[in-house]
Amino acid sequence: MKRTLFIVVSICVFILSIALPAVAQEPIDLAIVGGTVLTMDSEAHQIQEGYVAIRKDRIVDVGPKSRLERLYHPRQIINAKGQLAMPGLINTHTHIPMSLFRGIANDLTLQDWLEHYIFPAEARNVTRDFVHWGTLLGALEMIKSGTTTFADMYYFEDEVARSTKQAGLRGVLGETWLDFPAPDNKTFEAMEAFTEKFIQEFKGDPLITPAVAPHAPFTVSPEHLKAARALADKYGVPLLIHVAETKAEEQQIEAKYHARPVQHLKNVGFLEKSVVAAHCVWVNDTDIAILKTFDVGCAHNPSSNMMLASGVAPVVKMLQAGMDVGLGTDGPAGSNNDFDMLEEMDLASKLQKITLMDPKALPARSAVAMATIEGAKVLKLDKEIGSLEKGKRADLIILNLSHPNEVPSYDLYGSLVYSIKGCDVDTTIVNGHILMRHRNVLTLNEPEIIQKAREFHDRILESLKTH
Amino acid sequence: MKRTLFIVVSICVFILSIALPAVAQEPIDLAIVGGTVLTMDSEAHQIQEGYVAIRKDRIVDVGPKSRLERLYHPRQIINAKGQLAMPGLINTHTHIPMSLFRGIANDLTLQDWLEHYIFPAEARNVTRDFVHWGTLLGALEMIKSGTTTFADMYYFEDEVARSTKQAGLRGVLGETWLDFPAPDNKTFEAMEAFTEKFIQEFKGDPLITPAVAPHAPFTVSPEHLKAARALADKYGVPLLIHVAETKAEEQQIEAKYHARPVQHLKNVGFLEKSVVAAHCVWVNDTDIAILKTFDVGCAHNPSSNMMLASGVAPVVKMLQAGMDVGLGTDGPAGSNNDFDMLEEMDLASKLQKITLMDPKALPARSAVAMATIEGAKVLKLDKEIGSLEKGKRADLIILNLSHPNEVPSYDLYGSLVYSIKGCDVDTTIVNGHILMRHRNVLTLNEPEIIQKAREFHDRILESLKTH
Repeated sequence: MKRTLFIVVSICVFILSIALPAVAQEPIDLAIVGGTVLTMDSEAHQIQEGYVAIRKDRIVDVGPKSRLERLYHPRQIINAKGQLAMPGLINTHTHIPMSLFRGIANDLTLQDWLEHYIFPAEARNVTRDFVHWGTLLGALEMIKSGTTTFADMYYFEDEVARSTKQAGLRGVLGETWLDFPAPDNKTFEAMEAFTEKFIQEFKGDPLITPAVAPHAPFTVSPEHLKAARALADKYGVPLLIHVAETKAEEQQIEAKYHARPVQHLKNVGFLEKSVVAAHCVWVNDTDIAILKTFDVGCAHNPSSNMMLASGVAPVVKMLQAGMDVGLGTDGPAGSNNDFDMLEEMDLASKLQKITLMDPKALPARSAVAMATIEGAKVLKLDKEIGSLEKGKRADLIILNLSHPNEVPSYDLYGSLVYSIKGCDVDTTIVNGHILMRHRNVLTLNEPEIIQKAREFHDRILESLKTH
Repeated sequence: MKRTLFIVVSICVFILSIALPAVAQEPIDLAIVGGTVLTMDSEAHQIQEGYVAIRKDRIVDVGPKSRLERLYHPRQIINAKGQLAMPGLINTHTHIPMSLFRGIANDLTLQDWLEHYIFPAEARNVTRDFVHWGTLLGALEMIKSGTTTFADMYYFEDEVARSTKQAGLRGVLGETWLDFPAPDNKTFEAMEAFTEKFIQEFKGDPLITPAVAPHAPFTVSPEHLKAARALADKYGVPLLIHVAETKAEEQQIEAKYHARPVQHLKNVGFLEKSVVAAHCVWVNDTDIAILKTFDVGCAHNPSSNMMLASGVAPVVKMLQAGMDVGLGTDGPAGSNNDFDMLEEMDLASKLQKITLMDPKALPARSAVAMATIEGAKVLKLDKEIGSLEKGKRADLIILNLSHPNEVPSYDLYGSLVYSIKGCDVDTTIVNGHILMRHRNVLTLNEPEIIQKAREFHDRILESLKTH
């Protein structure tokens, strides 16, 4: 009897041990299998042979392949063996439609550049159609260089939003306000009404976070800054603004308002939760303390600050003060001139080193964090993106690790910052959707966009001649 | 009679007008047809739809396609329509075999990096085999990012030379001298004899210019500097040396020789024709005047100077003084970490702008010149390379102009410096030979080299553990 029972139990255990894993395998939509996984989570986990499980728009699990591949049954598998999977890059400050002005006015000061080239060129050329194609061109470049989320300030921002959704990217998109007529809205009332309608249209969108983007303290009056704050509060959306970019701005604001730019913003009640301050070059210790108090995130743009000779942002100081500092490319019309976040990491690190004369000033790992999880914090999206963790959105990129510039690699963070390039990105995934595979962008018609960009080039040149 | 003569002459002229072009077409080996040609000649000619005629290793003609295609009968045609043909990039300072140490010690000071990481790692790992594979790995990356000539300082430089010839690249290759045992030669006498043999072997080679490369004023005694000068003079070869890279070097040399590095080199009689001085960061006006007097070319390495926090070279001052200043990547073992000359142009320009707080400090066109014709002058090879001109060597690259980051383009120099990337290079030609076509390197076995690099990685890591 005992022996029979033993045999029956043994057989049952044997059957269960075969059947259970198959029964227990949870269905998922997509699995990234076999590559090194750089999680950028708070413990900086790196998994040698990893597995990322994705269901719909979310990461449902991250871990070693050996453990996870028995747990999940993926509808689609991406074999990432020998490659690197990491969070998609987050560009915290840009003007994406300006891709059509790429390099139109290089080697100039910010004031000269803005007043004599960019504002006139914009007045004559920026239409809804321009914004549509400019966004698609910028999106193409972002997808191909590993950016999955960007924060934008421009005009016709509802069109930026629609084009961004078409590309499949994630965006925090701010309609720009100015005290003078903009390409889209000619009066303040029109800007305000347009922005409210834009927010209503996109609030709650899975990819788009609408925002209000007063241009800068020197181009927007205190009254309009307050109106921007009020509108942002009404809908619970972020504010994007340029702050303390140049010495000239500092002097102008001090002369007019007897306060430094950051203090002026505080005085008018602009600084509350969810402000993204681009640049923060001319900030002193008091300014930094204020920014920290109001939890203002800084979008640092090393390339732009160097190219326009605006100054060097005190990034190390801001980080030491506990501020969130992300990276941005700024626009490509003479202040970068591309959307390549891998280059921005390299520059951010090298610029701090040389400025502080300290090669340890901003190590590679900090630069990678600024381009991922810290950028997410700047945009107040760190619960959703910025790292590869269970429950977060499936925004990730897969990089080749076999190109000559990528081998050998003694430290992945160092490789990413100092030798891996944008064109080493092989696959880009946003919200669970594959936007690029083996460098083919699946959501956009690349030749058509390139052709359109060339047509705009001719039209823009013509417009500058005839006026 | 008169009428008959007229008819006969007319018929003859008619026949000749048909027959002559065919008869007169000169045979050539290769024609680059239809692309924009950026000549970088002294008048900065740009040809919209151009034609470059190549016979054997030389450019025999450059001009508009409409005129030239009737004159030449090419054996092989490269259709460059919609692309950009320009001189190959010239890297005036590197240590190519160190590709195998890529990023092995990031975020460190030069002294710490050299003494605690690089010198020990070299002592344990640098063999002839290491130099062979390291050179091939570096050459792969150079070919793929548009470099056609590089100046190198390392050990087993005869092996660098052989591997460089295998890759098909052009090199000014200096055997490194130190006052302590090097990986290849353990005594000064051995170094000297080795170098003389190396020079004898490669003097007159169509691709290789052998050179003597005493490491730096702080690592080579005056006596040995003089010996290097004597050996260079004996064979009419260049001298390569690091000069005034760090503040520490300046202090060390001043304490020991009561002179600044440049003045010390002058005092020992080292500075004569054909010296390439890498870095020149800590040079004052007097130093610059001395360097100019002796026609010393400077190899400026913006990435390395930033990454090691060595300082910012006074590039604009040196250019204003009439010095030849080229660009270099330096080695990739924690001071760059790649061989990407397009990035170096971008950095060179942006670093001068931010340092001088002047966005016009080093415009795009100057940066492109530094990477081509000025680099050729630094290496005293400007009669042979650096521009696309009749009679020069056929060293050129063809770049794609249709990638998203490349359109639209309002200014080719600006595009090259600020938005075109190394991976936009489509075709690389050196000495009339096609080394890469459509990004396939034709002279080297890429997968084999990548595999070897990974094996060296494991071996190097092991060597650092066990000592």
